[in-house]
Amino acid sequence: MKKFEYLPEIAKLGHVAVISADLEKSLWFFKDVVGLEETAVADGVHYLRAWGDFEHHSLTLQAGEESRVDHIAFKTKRREDVNNFAILLEDAGIDVTKVQAGTEKGQGEAIRFNIPAGHSFELYFDMEKPLVEKYRKSVLKNQPLKPWNKGVSPRRIDHVNTVTTNAGEMVKFLKDILGFNIREYIKAPNDQIVAAWMSVTSLVHDIAVMTHPTDQHGLHHLAYWSENAQDMLRAADILSENGLKFVGPGKHGITQAMYIYVQDPGSGVLLELFANGYQIFEPDWEPIEWTVEDMQLGVTYWGQETGKTEAEQRSTNAGFTKSKTY
Amino acid sequence: MKKFEYLPEIAKLGHVAVISADLEKSLWFFKDVVGLEETAVADGVHYLRAWGDFEHHSLTLQAGEESRVDHIAFKTKRREDVNNFAILLEDAGIDVTKVQAGTEKGQGEAIRFNIPAGHSFELYFDMEKPLVEKYRKSVLKNQPLKPWNKGVSPRRIDHVNTVTTNAGEMVKFLKDILGFNIREYIKAPNDQIVAAWMSVTSLVHDIAVMTHPTDQHGLHHLAYWSENAQDMLRAADILSENGLKFVGPGKHGITQAMYIYVQDPGSGVLLELFANGYQIFEPDWEPIEWTVEDMQLGVTYWGQETGKTEAEQRSTNAGFTKSKTY
Amino acid sequence: MKKFEYLPEIAKLGHVAVISADLEKSLWFFKDVVGLEETAVADGVHYLRAWGDFEHHSLTLQAGEESRVDHIAFKTKRREDVNNFAILLEDAGIDVTKVQAGTEKGQGEAIRFNIPAGHSFELYFDMEKPLVEKYRKSVLKNQPLKPWNKGVSPRRIDHVNTVTTNAGEMVKFLKDILGFNIREYIKAPNDQIVAAWMSVTSLVHDIAVMTHPTDQHGLHHLAYWSENAQDMLRAADILSENGLKFVGPGKHGITQAMYIYVQDPGSGVLLELFANGYQIFEPDWEPIEWTVEDMQLGVTYWGQETGKTEAEQRSTNAGFTKSKTY
Amino acid sequence: MKKFEYLPEIAKLGHVAVISADLEKSLWFFKDVVGLEETAVADGVHYLRAWGDFEHHSLTLQAGEESRVDHIAFKTKRREDVNNFAILLEDAGIDVTKVQAGTEKGQGEAIRFNIPAGHSFELYFDMEKPLVEKYRKSVLKNQPLKPWNKGVSPRRIDHVNTVTTNAGEMVKFLKDILGFNIREYIKAPNDQIVAAWMSVTSLVHDIAVMTHPTDQHGLHHLAYWSENAQDMLRAADILSENGLKFVGPGKHGITQAMYIYVQDPGSGVLLELFANGYQIFEPDWEPIEWTVEDMQLGVTYWGQETGKTEAEQRSTNAGFTKSKTY
Repeated sequence: MKKFEYLPEIAKLGHVAVISADLEKSLWFFKDVVGLEETAVADGVHYLRAWGDFEHHSLTLQAGEESRVDHIAFKTKRREDVNNFAILLEDAGIDVTKVQAGTEKGQGEAIRFNIPAGHSFELYFDMEKPLVEKYRKSVLKNQPLKPWNKGVSPRRIDHVNTVTTNAGEMVKFLKDILGFNIREYIKAPNDQIVAAWMSVTSLVHDIAVMTHPTDQHGLHHLAYWSENAQDMLRAADILSENGLKFVGPGKHGITQAMYIYVQDPGSGVLLELFANGYQIFEPDWEPIEWTVEDMQLGVTYWGQETGKTEAEQRSTNAGFTKSKTY
Repeated sequence: MKKFEYLPEIAKLGHVAVISADLEKSLWFFKDVVGLEETAVADGVHYLRAWGDFEHHSLTLQAGEESRVDHIAFKTKRREDVNNFAILLEDAGIDVTKVQAGTEKGQGEAIRFNIPAGHSFELYFDMEKPLVEKYRKSVLKNQPLKPWNKGVSPRRIDHVNTVTTNAGEMVKFLKDILGFNIREYIKAPNDQIVAAWMSVTSLVHDIAVMTHPTDQHGLHHLAYWSENAQDMLRAADILSENGLKFVGPGKHGITQAMYIYVQDPGSGVLLELFANGYQIFEPDWEPIEWTVEDMQLGVTYWGQETGKTEAEQRSTNAGFTKSKTY
Repeated sequence: MKKFEYLPEIAKLGHVAVISADLEKSLWFFKDVVGLEETAVADGVHYLRAWGDFEHHSLTLQAGEESRVDHIAFKTKRREDVNNFAILLEDAGIDVTKVQAGTEKGQGEAIRFNIPAGHSFELYFDMEKPLVEKYRKSVLKNQPLKPWNKGVSPRRIDHVNTVTTNAGEMVKFLKDILGFNIREYIKAPNDQIVAAWMSVTSLVHDIAVMTHPTDQHGLHHLAYWSENAQDMLRAADILSENGLKFVGPGKHGITQAMYIYVQDPGSGVLLELFANGYQIFEPDWEPIEWTVEDMQLGVTYWGQETGKTEAEQRSTNAGFTKSKTY
Repeated sequence: MKKFEYLPEIAKLGHVAVISADLEKSLWFFKDVVGLEETAVADGVHYLRAWGDFEHHSLTLQAGEESRVDHIAFKTKRREDVNNFAILLEDAGIDVTKVQAGTEKGQGEAIRFNIPAGHSFELYFDMEKPLVEKYRKSVLKNQPLKPWNKGVSPRRIDHVNTVTTNAGEMVKFLKDILGFNIREYIKAPNDQIVAAWMSVTSLVHDIAVMTHPTDQHGLHHLAYWSENAQDMLRAADILSENGLKFVGPGKHGITQAMYIYVQDPGSGVLLELFANGYQIFEPDWEPIEWTVEDMQLGVTYWGQETGKTEAEQRSTNAGFTKSKTY
């Protein structure tokens, strides 16, 4: 495997591309209620980001007949990693599609591919840091936009949580080929991994994988991060006043983070509002193992429960059924 | 009824006297986990208060064969109100017992009586403001004790919530004889009041009354108030780490306050940790009416639900069955 | 003084009427930055209130050549108290002007008068509770408006803080004629009261009085209350991003409340954003005395200092010089 | 420089070793007021850590005639990095001392050396994760200790901030030899770097360097991180009640984090209590440049100021003069 001086590496989660069957409602939800900011609208695609996201967009929304997640994008550590990943993936028997610079506004050359489980991933390195109009710009040089303009107003994108029928296989792929580290996982009595939280950053997860009985390549939720626990309580008021049902607030044992789960009424995509949690700066981190016995505490340390498993929750409480990655 | 120049009036909730079948466990719960401070121990009675309670005690704990609430005490507005209430109550056909000064440590002359529903009430005016050892004293002249010494560390006692089989009658008594104002209430389809939140202060309730199918004179819970919503989240961590189950955090529609319900494992008494909420300074307040249709929102604006009615919750989730007032 | 069955009583602070030399800037400040909601605009007067204020308005803004506070209004406990106060005040040698119902939109019959120190007060009882458009209405029956619509978004008006050259005399008037209780005060070495915090409610102050070397009848600041300490930190972000200088956050010893002081750039009126603090339900409250020695702790428990006295602060840090009541 | 397959890398800040002229007072401060937990005491050394620190210790305290910082320790990414750094450093003309495993309790083989500016650094990889007594252990598998046991109770160590007479040179060393990335910096009109915030993690800084007129190798402060902004306000109460003077709360522009600065009364070491702030997951981060003109905003976004420069603050407000690294 010594084709490269360095193995290509992923640096962080970049964005999620959502197709919505009711774009107007999705825009109301993500812009007015959640309070994401719009960087640009081009060719029917709305490019959104949170006030603390440094790049051009962390979410795209566009109209489509059926709601689904088009792709999940990760940024590589170096520019050459995009091509090197292409080589690595093709060696692993995966079809890779090159995406021209500018296909997504602000984004340089990228690649897309379906991981074996079926989810569509994108890898890119170059991404424009957009000029911001003076009235929207923070007075701080290190902060892209003024906060608290509207709605919940989270700081930045945090992670995606995916489902598949064979979590163990998907986790292995994410680890061996894409380089994600397992930070915490749930092990079934038969020693199979039924859920894992994985990251390339110091976050407990940039991506999680959970077992689903039938959905081979689904998105459980995408998450935006707020800075303080109390922001979750303010979010709960805002969601309630906008007539939106949600699960939470509560605190996960796994990740130690506070959560609220609420569904975009336009696309059906489940959004997690997320706050607090711990970080892993340890280079010798030993993945935390949860068993079926203590899993309940791992899923819900306290607060309104998300279901016995989150996967169960997904198709029951929050009614998320349509969003898929292909 | 012109026996007095002024009608006697109640100023505030004073304290709750709890008998515990497992005093040691109750002391652990209220002192170490909740973080109440001990003013004194005398004749087997532990006198506790929160760091912001100005009086000698807001909770007493003592051992007994069966756990129960011995009495709920309210402070009158003027010293002479204690006797004037005695006259008023006897006129209403209620037996009144005089309690000698010092029977409860720090407390002056008082009266005790059972309201028609059966709950035992105490009325007092004089209450010592105890000297505090220098190391426990706040540096602020207007604050009795240093905060954050241990556990949850709420600021002050807030309210009691009672149950009875005929809420309407008890509410009428509290209003007509004791002068509590109805602030919010739930009305059954037959126009009966099934629950009411009542106060003599600007708080939405100093006392609430809820219908219970069989319990004629019970305490649903007593509540201590913390200053900030985030204190509820810290409390949730502390309770979880101490192995205590609880309901919440959530936010009531009625009172607009955040809640956590947790049971004292010693006495079985249900404690509400409470924060935020609104105040009524309006002299022309019109009681807020909730119907069976919108009651659910009134009970739980968001968060982990307390049951379809709190009374239901009481005998299910929190398992509070033993504590009674006589 | 037995002219009335009951002495008339004040129930609460109602509103402050501000004349602004730069109305547009004041509207930007109070509506967009602070986030007050507009109930109505009539005859050039903008009627504003916070989302948790139950009455028609808690602040009025109108254009004028010179910025000043036109009057401070308090609501009486009973309808007849308005007239009874008129009698009481005239007996005390004070000129009283009757104000027709509707002179202020939503308000019933009222009286206005200058207290001996010179500040213009208004007393009213009847005040419309305005109908709210569905999209602005809270889903909760006990909450007038949806919160978090814009800017800081405090819950309700809290208090006014006034200055005068002889604080002791003004305090005496507020106590003897208007019935305000002294809750805390600062005493000079010559035993004179140099500042006092006074209330008719359970708040530590509905009105404060501070000594000023030259200003006989000024407003130091008006205050709006937010529910949580963290709201002060979010407010600090919002003010900073809007290019507004402010003092704080900090915590007063007196009142135990958190503060931020920021000046309306239109009128020069100083606004205090205020959170937390303690309440006095004690009928036998003994006013807390602060001396010149411990006053510093009383003014600033911690955080950015407001000046050695607030009165000093007023003319230095915040530059509030123009607003006056006549 | 191709001596190694991989260049050695630093993973994170590990701990700070403090010698205190008044150990008893330092232990009171760090254990009772700050609320750090004691892992072990051996040979007169107290090994402390926060409840969320995964390793054996993040602070050591021991008695000494003169208070000083003995060394600052960083953990490497791989075990072999410790030796590889030794080679790298000796190549750069720096004397390296090997430290036997167990010299510091829980720690494996390490190296110590003075950087050219004079500060004493330690590099280690192996560090024991200590067994925790059941009563102190969190119920969560991913959290070392129960939180909120005592005092401020921060989550984890965050960073160190150092001073030297030639910041530019020290920054160059940290970057070129030790691999720290510049995240933000202040540039003097003569184009010299006068302060820099540098990290190997996603934190804005694991170490900061600031110019000091005379101190060639000093520690400005060490910092512990709390999870929520409100924790800073609770900390302010706790410090005030313990009679400790401090600077803050405020919010830095650089790092966007809230701060309180308080001095250990035993050793004179300055401690920063720290919360919130942003993270850098961007692999193509361009260091944020602050100039003398906008530096004031960078140092204090809002709140009680830390001095025109923090270095100035160090010798004035907080009186930190004794702590040094050799």
